Parts: sequence; C-alpha cells; structure tokens
Amino acid sequence: MSTQQETIPSFIFTIFGATGDLAKRKLFPALYSLYREKQLRCNFAVIGVGRKNIDSFEFRTWVKNSIAEFSRLSLCAGEEWEQFAARFSYISFDVKDTAKYAALRSLVEAKEQENKLSGNRMFYLAIAPQLFGTVATNLKESGLTNTKGWKRLIIEKPFGHDYTSAEALNEEIKRSFAEEEIYRIDHYLGKEMVQNIQVIRFANSMFEPLWNNRHIDNIQITASETVGVEDRASYYDRAGALRDMVQNHMLQMVMMVCMEPPSRLKTEAIRDEKVKVMRALRRFSEEEVDRHIVRGQYIAGTIGGKSFLGYREEPDVNPASTTETFVAAKLYIDNFRWADVPIYIRTGKRMPEKLTEIVIQFKELPKRLYFNKNNDLMPNLLIFRIQPNEGITLLLNAKKQGTDSQIIPIGMEYCNDCEAASPEAYESLLHDAILGDSTFFTRWDEVALAWKFIDPIRCAWDKDPCSLAEYEVGTWGPVEAHELLQKDGKRWWTGSDHRERKTIRAVERPKYQREEE
Amino acid sequence: MSTQQETIPSFIFTIFGATGDLAKRKLFPALYSLYREKQLRCNFAVIGVGRKNIDSFEFRTWVKNSIAEFSRLSLCAGEEWEQFAARFSYISFDVKDTAKYAALRSLVEAKEQENKLSGNRMFYLAIAPQLFGTVATNLKESGLTNTKGWKRLIIEKPFGHDYTSAEALNEEIKRSFAEEEIYRIDHYLGKEMVQNIQVIRFANSMFEPLWNNRHIDNIQITASETVGVEDRASYYDRAGALRDMVQNHMLQMVMMVCMEPPSRLKTEAIRDEKVKVMRALRRFSEEEVDRHIVRGQYIAGTIGGKSFLGYREEPDVNPASTTETFVAAKLYIDNFRWADVPIYIRTGKRMPEKLTEIVIQFKELPKRLYFNKNNDLMPNLLIFRIQPNEGITLLLNAKKQGTDSQIIPIGMEYCNDCEAASPEAYESLLHDAILGDSTFFTRWDEVALAWKFIDPIRCAWDKDPCSLAEYEVGTWGPVEAHELLQKDGKRWWTGSDHRERKTIRAVERPKYQREEE
Repeated sequence: MSTQQETIPSFIFTIFGATGDLAKRKLFPALYSLYREKQLRCNFAVIGVGRKNIDSFEFRTWVKNSIAEFSRLSLCAGEEWEQFAARFSYISFDVKDTAKYAALRSLVEAKEQENKLSGNRMFYLAIAPQLFGTVATNLKESGLTNTKGWKRLIIEKPFGHDYTSAEALNEEIKRSFAEEEIYRIDHYLGKEMVQNIQVIRFANSMFEPLWNNRHIDNIQITASETVGVEDRASYYDRAGALRDMVQNHMLQMVMMVCMEPPSRLKTEAIRDEKVKVMRALRRFSEEEVDRHIVRGQYIAGTIGGKSFLGYREEPDVNPASTTETFVAAKLYIDNFRWADVPIYIRTGKRMPEKLTEIVIQFKELPKRLYFNKNNDLMPNLLIFRIQPNEGITLLLNAKKQGTDSQIIPIGMEYCNDCEAASPEAYESLLHDAILGDSTFFTRWDEVALAWKFIDPIRCAWDKDPCSLAEYEVGTWGPVEAHELLQKDGKRWWTGSDHRERKTIRAVERPKYQREEE
Repeated sequence: MSTQQETIPSFIFTIFGATGDLAKRKLFPALYSLYREKQLRCNFAVIGVGRKNIDSFEFRTWVKNSIAEFSRLSLCAGEEWEQFAARFSYISFDVKDTAKYAALRSLVEAKEQENKLSGNRMFYLAIAPQLFGTVATNLKESGLTNTKGWKRLIIEKPFGHDYTSAEALNEEIKRSFAEEEIYRIDHYLGKEMVQNIQVIRFANSMFEPLWNNRHIDNIQITASETVGVEDRASYYDRAGALRDMVQNHMLQMVMMVCMEPPSRLKTEAIRDEKVKVMRALRRFSEEEVDRHIVRGQYIAGTIGGKSFLGYREEPDVNPASTTETFVAAKLYIDNFRWADVPIYIRTGKRMPEKLTEIVIQFKELPKRLYFNKNNDLMPNLLIFRIQPNEGITLLLNAKKQGTDSQIIPIGMEYCNDCEAASPEAYESLLHDAILGDSTFFTRWDEVALAWKFIDPIRCAWDKDPCSLAEYEVGTWGPVEAHELLQKDGKRWWTGSDHRERKTIRAVERPKYQREEE
C-alpha cells in the first residue's frame, strides 16, 4: 500500500458474505482506513450481498458498527461518515440462486450510472469456499463480468483441500475470470514485515553475498498462536494445521525468504521466482514424512497460569480426533543456493506466546577458533519479527563492557511500528487489488505446487494415526519437534524484542518431558 | 581489562612525573577504580617520583584530591581509603640526577620488604619524552632493573618526532628494557569500542565474508575535537595533527580494522598482523602527498554560537605558524584484501563536535537495480562509535511503514555504555600492563613503520607551506577535505546515535565555501 498519489480508477466493489465475520472484522474496517487516510482518491461504491434480510440503511448501520468495533481508527462523525456510508448498498439473496444475479446486475449498473463509475468491478468472495465456483460461474452467466472496465475476483483461503480439489475449483473459476483477474489472498503477504523481506534482501548490498548455503546454517520460521480452535472447530477439525497454516502462510514465507533475486521487482518476475522455490522444494515420499515432519495435538495445560482444555475436549471437536494442531517440519530447497540448508518451520495453537518470526541463523564460527574455543559462541541471527511487534533484530557477539575477553551476545534492533501502528494486512491487500497490483497475492502455480508438496504428507498421516504426538498447552510443541533439530545438532530460537527487553533464547524441550531425556 | 579472577602478582609501581597532569587526571583515578572494583587482587605499592618537594603524607593528599576531581567513582571514606592511601609513598628528585636513583632503589627495596612484594617492578614515565632515555638508562645503572621479579616500562607518546629520533630513543631504552618489557601506550587502544573491533570482526561469522574489497567500498575514520590547543600550544605547534594524532591513534585504528585474522588471538600474533597492515600501507612520495593528504589550520569562527579564535591567534602559538590542526588523508593498503579500497581518515581541532567513529561503507547496490533505479539508495554503513557514545550502528534500507515502494534508511543500534559508564582507557591499559598483556600496546615495528609513512608527508609539507588550507572553527575541515572524497564520487558520513536521535548524514562541504563550488 502506497502513500504516493497514484491515480486510482473508479470502481464498484461487490462483497459476497457482507454480513459475515470476515467482512465485519477486516473488510469494512480496511475500506474505512483507506478512505480516511486518503488512499482511495477516486469514486467508488460498495454493494453488500448476504443472506441476512436487511435493507441498505440497515446495512450501513451494520457497517458502521463493524468499523466502530474493529477499526484501528476511531469513527468520524457527521458529514464525513455520511459521505462514506452513502457509497454502501445491500442486496439480499442466496448466492446459489442463479436467477437472483440479474437483480445484482441491475443494482451494480444503477450504482455505476448514479456514481458515474467507469465499469471497473471488483468481487470479493467472503463466503464458504465451496461456493467460490458457483458464484464465479453465476457472475459470468448473469453478464456481471461483461463490463467495459476491468473485473477482478478476490478469494480467501482455503483454496481446495488438496491438489485435486484445488485444481477443480481453479478450473471452474477460470471459466469466468482469467488468472490475472484472480486475487488469491494470503493475508500473511499483506503484513508489513513480510513485505519488507524483499526490501531488506534486495535494497542492501551486504545481505545478498551472505544469503546462501555457504553462510547460512539454517532458517527457522515460527508462527505460534496462544488461541485454540475457538469457533472454527468444525472447519479446523477437518483441515488441521498442515492445510490451515503450512500450505499457505508458512510456505509463502519460505518463498519470500528463499527466492532468487528476480529480474525486475515486478509482479510476474517475483512470482516466477517464488514458483521456482516451490519447484525446488524437496517433496517427501510417504516413507520420508516421518523423518522430516512432526505433527502434534495439544492436551490440557496452562498458559500464563490459566488452564485450557485439550483439543479433543474442545466443543465441536471429535473426541477421537487425530487432527494436528501443531506442525514442525524440516524442509530442503534443492538448488545451488540452498542445498543442505535445513529450513525448519513450525506452527501451532495453544503455544506459550503469539508470535511470527523468521530466524536466519548464520554459520557458526569455525570450531575452536578465537572466541569459540569451547564451541559455545552464539551464532549470528538475523530475525524478521513479523508479529506482534514488527521489526528486525540482528544478534551479534561483542565484548562484554569492561572485560578483556568475555563475549556476550548483543541485539541490534530496528522497530517498524514503535512510532505508529502499522496498517492492517487487509488495507494493504485491498489497496493493491484496487490498483491491480497482484504481487502480494498467490498465483495458481504457487498454490498448485504447495498442494503437491502437502498431499503426500497428508496421505502418510492418514495412514498412520500414531504419527500424532501430544504436547501440553503452553509449550513449544511436542518433544519430537525439538528432537527434529537436536538430531541435526541445532535448536529452535525465539523471542527477541527490545520493547519487552527479551533476549533471544534457545527454546528448550518442554519441561514436562525433561525426565525422559 | 577483565573482571575474571586472574591471579595478579604483587608488584611495585613507580610513577615518574607523579605530580604532573597525566598522573593526576588519569593514573591515580585509574588505579583507584581498579582497586575499588577489585581488579587489583594483590599486594602492591606505589612510589611517586616528582620534582615537587613534598613528603609522602602530602603526596597522599595530592593523590586523594586528584581522585576526588577526576575519578569516575566517588571517593570512599574512612578505613578503605586509608588502606589504599597507605600504599603510596613519594620521593622527590630531578630524574636527570643519576646519583639520586640509589635513594629510589632503597625506597623500592624497603617497600618491597615491608609489603612482602615479590620483586615485580613497573615503571611509568609520565614525563617529558626527551627524558625517556635518561630515566631508562638510570634505572638500569642504579640497579633498579635488577630484580628477581619482572620489570616493565610504560611510556606515553610522543615516541620520537620522526623515524630517526624514534629509533635513537628506542635504541637507548632497549639497553635497559627488552622489547617485551616496554609498554608503549596508545590510549585509543584502551578504548572499549576499539578493543571491540576485533571481537566484532572475529566473533561473528557474518562479517568476515564481507570484510574485503569485493564488498566494502571505502572506510572512513574520523577523530574530531571541539577543543583547540588549550595549554599544549608549545608542544602542539611543533608537533601538529599529523604527529599528534595520525602517526599513532589514527593508524592504530586503521590496523585494527584492516588486519588479517591472526593465527591466534594472542598478543604477538595480533601485532604481527597489525604490522603487516603497516607494511602494506602505501607510502606516498613527496610528489604524491598533495593528491592524497589535506592539511588545514583553523581560523576564527563559532561552535554552538560561541566564538573562538583562529589557531594563529592562540596564546603561545607562532602568529605565522604553518602547523596543521587538521589532517584528512586517503590511504591505500596494497594487499589482496584491501586493494582499491580507499581508507579515508580525518582528524582535527575546533570541529563541530567531539567524535571518534569508524564507518565501514559497503558497496552500493548495482546501479539501476531494483530500488536503486535512480542510483540514490543509501549504501549500507557499519559504524563503530568509539566516543563519546560507545556503540555500533548498522544502517540498512527498509520499506517505509505503510508504503509499497518507498525505501528509507533505518538504523539498527547497539549501545555499549547506556546501562553503565565504561571504564576509562587507562584502567584497562594499566590492568593489562600489570598482567603482562601487551596486546593493546604498540610494538616497536608498528611505531617504526608509522614514522616511515609519516616522514615523507612531513617533508613534503615543510617544503610547501602553501599546502596548508584554512577552515573555519566549527566546520568539518577545509573544503579540500571534502573534495578529496568528491573526486572519488564519495562523501564523508558522520553522526549516528540513537540516544541523541541523530540519523546518519552525509557531511556537506562547509557552508562558507559553497559559493565557490
């Protein structure tokens, strides 16, 4: 999202699922922030489509309430609000009811005429994914995609539940929208510090010479949550962490960190390089899964003194569920740059803290050399702190003040959001979609290759329920996730933020497992 | 200086010039800090030698006053002070009076016996350098260097005023003390962040791959002062900035930054590598001096609104003096690592701020690439902040928060002395000398090679008084110092410290010269 003065074309924005959770929590607040911060320097109208039987006036109140509750900006009063709200209309129908799209079309055309819009149409499917194909088809067949302006379709994950279903869905959508008209949201790509990865890598001459297997020992990507399944149990229990987090967000971060420098910093050039990472990503046969990937499910425990149920005891979860709420994996990218550099990823629910960070661990100093006599020197770490506190940490070794020879790790810190809160990922992504910049959306081939990587893992697990390990709520995952690195002589790092005066630390094996060591 | 529990042998410490300025400002406070901070876990006695006709009781008061005035620690009261003070004795004589050394020897032996010391003898010559040889000779001839313990001689700059005089002095001292018994102080080597250079370089795997002419564009070392000549005019007007700062401090910093990794981090291995830098340092013929070195003298001007006289108007300065108060130079180290990397140094008096820092400027991003479309991207800078605020700054480029494509320079900061003041250089150096660690003292061959580099420059200048440029008090030196870099398409950088919220900035040509550009 740019603060520069791009000319933004006028457009009409139709949101399917306008009375749903995503629209309420993310889309309306994002639109409002963009509007208030003068990022939408254009004429636009918004049409909500939903099953709830309300009129446009009631809809505007709905929008207002959602902004009041979830926006990072406070709601402005009076005329400014009225001008914003007047752009919103609502139409209620069941999206499976093909006949009703004619009414939507009439409304769209009427609003375009009324607001002198140029025919650019953006459709956001904030609805159940099994309806994506249906809506796309109906949009075409009703003539809604037949416009003199551009048309764009924005969809959210999950995009299929395996390669076959994803491909079928893509085929269906493709009949109505061309690939370049489809904006697949991965909201991690909208995060400030994820977008900063390519800048840090490519706007600084000192990193590219180090960014390879000669200088990097391993890469660690952690996305941990403290929450459980909340009200998503019925979806989550069928999906699991592998599909919910790894197939999309985790692999996207792998691509951003590991891609080759693109020929230009342009959308397709960047996506081409991302796809090359996915092509080089080693796929595991079902037999290899066990050695490279750990899955876990949380059992009852405490976080910060508060007790939580185990996963199987959560409402709407099958009491015999073998769904994983945690995944740790050791990945390899088999190309010249990354050969032999393990890329460890892990994600889980009910972990000790909510945290997304990428740790680049540089090689250790030669053994026994200089200050590494006892081979106990901390390695250099470059850490992208994605959330909750955005920034970069560089861990170096330095002389302890007032000593000759004592070496201590020091943290050099950059904070991205200490002076002002960053925009929400959805603001950035919506703005990009309006501008037609799909750099931070996922292309079909990325999605397809991600599923091809995921499917054999899923198959192996489905055949072997015993592969599911337990971890206590409030720990950094099952002991197997620690052993995955320990076998390689490595360990997880986490938790550096100068605001909290935390130092980077090695993540220990969970305490309750200690006796078994 | 280590906080570890080394066993420190007992010793007697004889200070020549005990009532002089250096002893008062630096030596007594340093001894006191070491004592208070339990760095001197041993038996010791101090004998002051001076021309002032006082007794030991008066001397202890003198020592007490000097500590009260200059120590970074507050003076303790009562018994602790008495125990410390009881170690001090005083003897008054003219150091040229050979006959008087017998009395000193008696005193030393009496104190050794009284305190059950083991015969280790450290002599500190805090006196005029022309007396170094005399005292060293008298120490030997009086039998004072004839001891069953070790003997060490500590001397201060200036060590000669050219190669010939330095060699003559060294020959004279060598007759009484072996090279390994001579501790030549360069107090810059006692500074925390100068000592940290080798740690940063060699305890971090990410720097060594970058530390060469493939990745470093240039190195800049600045040591600026706001003071003028103060009460040192009679010395300074004969010495000048080249002898006073460049021959020792500036070249020592060049050696620390540029040396090859030593075989071991041991004194002689490190000094061997430092000497190799001096051997590879390109020497300029008299004809080449003009193109590589700028000298300047300050004329009246203001610093922070306060007016100051020009150098020639200072008391005790020859009104027609051609002594330089500023030197900027472009150095080259002709070896594989540093070929073609200019090393710019500059030092001067009456400059806008007191500052010592070393800037490693990494190569720019390829022209026209990515974010460097307009070739205006800031280069990466790694800055060792030696003083006044100790630390490290790394300047990187990152995405401006909330934008797609705007790149801003960001500073990553490490502060070495934010939580507690660092020990004084003299504490560290005295402690090292007591322990027999001469790593951070200069070896004769370093000194000799430094003079061999300096002498032709001095000769060229002496023949060409017109080579002296003027600069106004409160500016960053004469315009020629800026042109020295501008000719190479580069510029001086200075002034990064997060405590003062300063950002790194390019140093502009002095304003008053702007019209002439």
